[in-house]
Amino acid sequence: MDGKLITLEGIDGSGKSTQMRMLAGELRLRGVEILQTREPGGTPLGRRLRAAFLETEEDVHPMAELLLFAADRAQHVNYLIKPAIAEGKIVLSDRYADATFAYQGAGRGFPEETVSEVIKLATGGLTPDLTLFFDLPVERALVRTNDEDSDHRITNRMDQEDSDFYARVRQSYLGIADREPDRFRVVDADRSISEIQHDVVEIVTGFLELPAPEKKAKPAKPADESA
Amino acid sequence: MDGKLITLEGIDGSGKSTQMRMLAGELRLRGVEILQTREPGGTPLGRRLRAAFLETEEDVHPMAELLLFAADRAQHVNYLIKPAIAEGKIVLSDRYADATFAYQGAGRGFPEETVSEVIKLATGGLTPDLTLFFDLPVERALVRTNDEDSDHRITNRMDQEDSDFYARVRQSYLGIADREPDRFRVVDADRSISEIQHDVVEIVTGFLELPAPEKKAKPAKPADESA
Repeated sequence: MDGKLITLEGIDGSGKSTQMRMLAGELRLRGVEILQTREPGGTPLGRRLRAAFLETEEDVHPMAELLLFAADRAQHVNYLIKPAIAEGKIVLSDRYADATFAYQGAGRGFPEETVSEVIKLATGGLTPDLTLFFDLPVERALVRTNDEDSDHRITNRMDQEDSDFYARVRQSYLGIADREPDRFRVVDADRSISEIQHDVVEIVTGFLELPAPEKKAKPAKPADESA
Repeated sequence: MDGKLITLEGIDGSGKSTQMRMLAGELRLRGVEILQTREPGGTPLGRRLRAAFLETEEDVHPMAELLLFAADRAQHVNYLIKPAIAEGKIVLSDRYADATFAYQGAGRGFPEETVSEVIKLATGGLTPDLTLFFDLPVERALVRTNDEDSDHRITNRMDQEDSDFYARVRQSYLGIADREPDRFRVVDADRSISEIQHDVVEIVTGFLELPAPEKKAKPAKPADESA
């Protein structure tokens, strides 16, 4: 199988990280070689940068934030994602460049050209083959973020933002879905985990053209009984 | 006095940090309000980023390095340098944007346009009013770097580079001096600390149009004796 980059996007609290773990498990069961990673913090340098961002005692200027996430991404793309793709792996990344358009572009208000420029420097032009966007009304996502914080350490700073910020972020993601419907698939994340998982597995296995798994519940044929 | 940005540049081991401390002391004695700072690491965030860069267990990709130093600079310019200039202070920075042209451009081989683009994002176009470049043959600088490491923690990684790298860096600095002789002054750093200091104080006080200090060794006039 050719290596591919599949990214998972969504506003904080959309459940994408849970879905990524379940998708990774499902793909491994089917024998797919995968690399599970994330932004920011996919590399040792990235984890240090992420900690610096979260732990610093001062506000982080929006331009510093944009460039810092880009530095994380340059390390991630060059030393982790590209080599894994070259080895034929399916890379699953919890956030990637679309998050920068949504959070730093629409959210923080940087012009699209500035964001594009920085993303191009960081990625060298590597775009995802497939992106799953876990969509949820902002009010529902904010509730989840407050409920379960295991996956949302990076968003401690973001939590201070008002829901207008998240509304802009969500609209930006939905705009990408309009412009790139083939790559960027919207998953309704306002459902049960298992319902969402069903769609995610269907989209990804269809995209990767994986054969359907053998059904466990299939009634045994007479020939099998004689074996 | 209007606020100004004065930067000090030089290859590692050129003695610029020692000269900056002495210059800062001299300016303070003359009543000039100054802010002494550095790149990378001029802000709390910057110090964390600098530590992340130095301490990470993996190689730092050149593009990640370029963007990381730019993130440090964006924070530094927006939250420290610009406010200090607005308050009428003289900002003395140990390294600034010219270092990126020299180290990441000429040293690491990034095209000048890429470096310019990143610098413009980080600085918003803020250029130094005056830059002192402490020039030294590469072999002499490398000897100093090995001798005295107090000022060279940031260069631990750079120390592994060969002298060709530093030769390219030095040539890049000298190229800036050719193109911008008014702003970018070359100080011969292959002399004693006090000789270098003499030139530095002369250049900076001339640039700031400070009055000459009263001479301590002036012979007392007869009128003074009767007082």
